[in-house]
Amino acid sequence: MTLDAVLARVDADLDAAMERLMTLLRVPSISTDPAYDGDVAKAAQILADDLNELGFDASVRETTGHPMVVAHGNDEGPHVLFYGHYDVQPVDPLDLWNRDPFDPVIEEQNGKPVIRARGASDDKGQLMTFIEACRAWKAVTGKLPAKVTIFLEGEEESGSPSLVPFMEAHADELKAEVAFICDTGLFAEGVPAIVTQLRGMMKEELTITGPSIDLHSGMFGGIAMNPIRVLSGILAGLHDEKGAVTVPGFYDDVPEISDALRESWNKLNFDAQAFLAPVGLSAPAGEAGRTPLEMIWSRPTAEVNGIWGGYTGAGFKTVLPSQAHAKVSFRLVAGQDPARLHDNFKAWVEAQLPPDCTASFAPAIGSPASQMDTSHPVFETTLKALSDEWPGDAAFIGCGGSIPVAGYFKEILGMDSVLAGFGKDDDAIHSPNEKYDVESFHRGIRSWARVLGGLAQG
Amino acid sequence: MTLDAVLARVDADLDAAMERLMTLLRVPSISTDPAYDGDVAKAAQILADDLNELGFDASVRETTGHPMVVAHGNDEGPHVLFYGHYDVQPVDPLDLWNRDPFDPVIEEQNGKPVIRARGASDDKGQLMTFIEACRAWKAVTGKLPAKVTIFLEGEEESGSPSLVPFMEAHADELKAEVAFICDTGLFAEGVPAIVTQLRGMMKEELTITGPSIDLHSGMFGGIAMNPIRVLSGILAGLHDEKGAVTVPGFYDDVPEISDALRESWNKLNFDAQAFLAPVGLSAPAGEAGRTPLEMIWSRPTAEVNGIWGGYTGAGFKTVLPSQAHAKVSFRLVAGQDPARLHDNFKAWVEAQLPPDCTASFAPAIGSPASQMDTSHPVFETTLKALSDEWPGDAAFIGCGGSIPVAGYFKEILGMDSVLAGFGKDDDAIHSPNEKYDVESFHRGIRSWARVLGGLAQG
Repeated sequence: MTLDAVLARVDADLDAAMERLMTLLRVPSISTDPAYDGDVAKAAQILADDLNELGFDASVRETTGHPMVVAHGNDEGPHVLFYGHYDVQPVDPLDLWNRDPFDPVIEEQNGKPVIRARGASDDKGQLMTFIEACRAWKAVTGKLPAKVTIFLEGEEESGSPSLVPFMEAHADELKAEVAFICDTGLFAEGVPAIVTQLRGMMKEELTITGPSIDLHSGMFGGIAMNPIRVLSGILAGLHDEKGAVTVPGFYDDVPEISDALRESWNKLNFDAQAFLAPVGLSAPAGEAGRTPLEMIWSRPTAEVNGIWGGYTGAGFKTVLPSQAHAKVSFRLVAGQDPARLHDNFKAWVEAQLPPDCTASFAPAIGSPASQMDTSHPVFETTLKALSDEWPGDAAFIGCGGSIPVAGYFKEILGMDSVLAGFGKDDDAIHSPNEKYDVESFHRGIRSWARVLGGLAQG
Repeated sequence: MTLDAVLARVDADLDAAMERLMTLLRVPSISTDPAYDGDVAKAAQILADDLNELGFDASVRETTGHPMVVAHGNDEGPHVLFYGHYDVQPVDPLDLWNRDPFDPVIEEQNGKPVIRARGASDDKGQLMTFIEACRAWKAVTGKLPAKVTIFLEGEEESGSPSLVPFMEAHADELKAEVAFICDTGLFAEGVPAIVTQLRGMMKEELTITGPSIDLHSGMFGGIAMNPIRVLSGILAGLHDEKGAVTVPGFYDDVPEISDALRESWNKLNFDAQAFLAPVGLSAPAGEAGRTPLEMIWSRPTAEVNGIWGGYTGAGFKTVLPSQAHAKVSFRLVAGQDPARLHDNFKAWVEAQLPPDCTASFAPAIGSPASQMDTSHPVFETTLKALSDEWPGDAAFIGCGGSIPVAGYFKEILGMDSVLAGFGKDDDAIHSPNEKYDVESFHRGIRSWARVLGGLAQG
């Protein structure tokens, strides 16, 4: 059988594949820091060269920011788009790294081999799993079992400023039946997953102003309204005693998950204690009556991400400040409109202001939640391929975070995305000593090889 | 009459007195910045030299910090101690000053002559009013009408670290019947006052810890307890809906003011609107049912002076922080024990912690309130002298802030303090463009000349 030969080729080529990944990992493609602009461009060129060598029609495309890499495989079959990003996070604090973040090495961690370097997991290692799967198919059969377009971004870690304009300008070239995004993780050790719902986000920055200038609390303490007190009162009331968000209308259009999805999530036997213990927590602190997976995947939330006001340095200054500030973000689910939430939040805050206090709001930044339509057969194909490769069965899961590109694919290109990846919770992405399990890399390549094989039959 | 001659001498000598003050103002005696240590010492020496010339037995006394100046006038009569401080606040932000803070000048402000310089009001100008009054008495009569000890500190603006040890080591030398402290202000334009009650202070720094590390709100938002939410809830509950502090036992030993004092305060016709308007406020926001003067003089308070946690920079970071912090200060009145308040506050916070959260407290810093026993005749003598000098009648008033030296005089030396000074609310002490009205300086000298005269008769 062809697939067996392809998988055998993946196994035989693993060391060489790791070498190729390391070549990419040696390039410090930190997109947020202009000092590394040349390295970001270099990483793009390495990928385009590699893809051209593989038989793709690949090129580096300039943008007003960092370049995109677009590669077309002119093979036959269903058309799919693969997305990954070749830029990486900064490495600060460098002194917490045990070695040079851009000198990749294979080493043991918890008794298993890992690839250690910045970007090993996020996202160079992950994107290379797909390219290596294509390489194995090409090596064995001389072609790909599907029409594959590869789209690699160099600005994912710096806000993707060029992504939407580029997608709009090249919609015809990028549009496919479905997209694959390899930037997520396993559900648990040995258990793969496809993320089918992603929460959206609404970010609010709020300033409460009381007195026009900072006051001395000796002179004015007791008679003047303190904006920290006002802000604390507002934020303390953001959740009710059952953990529900109190902004009017917040839950108006929030759907319950389907019975099927609920059943499938229940089967995951998510261990909230095991999830919380590594970060020093024991009790799920979300909405009463909701399962832990609902709390992080399907229920909207409100969090205060930052608060500041008055004197915050060493020692004491008995100031009664003029202003107090908070950054509040809402994780949104399908059905919630960021703009309407902003209006409701603003009105809710203003209704609570005592005399002499005003509230101002920074321009709010919002993106709606994504909910994939899983009816395209590629979802089932991928689920089966992943289940065949890994010890555990794959499941459709939710994701608490936001992956904006999935929303843009839907909005601009009308494609649903299959979000499948092989990262682990302890990969330390965005942190010192990032790693990617060799098993993730190896089984990841084999997973995509199986997916590609499945596409041909689908 | 002798007093008339002394007052005439004050008037005639005013220009020379201002010149002497300017000599002192030219020395940048910023006690908190070691770069100015030499200048602080220089200011002390100028004062000691001047006092010796005046016939005092004056000397600069070394401490482990900045020196004290102690001067004994060996005249007869009741023994009084005069306290002032010759150090000054830093001058940052320097660019907000209209001229060099240490190049004093007489200029017009609101149609009245003022002395402009750092320290003009706080406290060089004020302490010189007393020295100039002594000079006038010496010039006219060859002696002082009382036994005067002058005690000048050089660390008042940097926490007075040497004050208590020095006072304890030299108690015999410093102890008098009563102390004069010239570091306060007029009650209103033309209306002098003696401060007879000062609020104490308890400073608490509180940290709430939830998760052991900062978390990503995408992954953990909705399931993990956010310490900012916990802290906000605690601080929001620090006052009840009537503005009263909710820490158990807070009001247990808080006395009501006497009917006589209440009547005297009512006569002051304090205009809360006029007090609040310049800082952009209109409504007294303290305890319901209390007068504005009670709120700032005789009632204890709780204020959040600073709050911080999570991401507070530009833009957004959807962090769910491990910790949130606040600085809380309580203004105390007579009867409240700082140590007991700390225990009660700590227990009150801890009782509100949800699962997985802990609270820690920086070492609390407290000083009790001061309430003068005004039965010593010097209080009436001073009240009369001030009323004779100024257009308005002098009153016993409260002060919202803390002047710790008054507490130490009571505690260590067993003396009550007569707190009388001539500063104005718009003197901009601790701020750019500090000034002292020439009227304050002139009538201040005349006020002390009258007080000294009254002591001889008392």
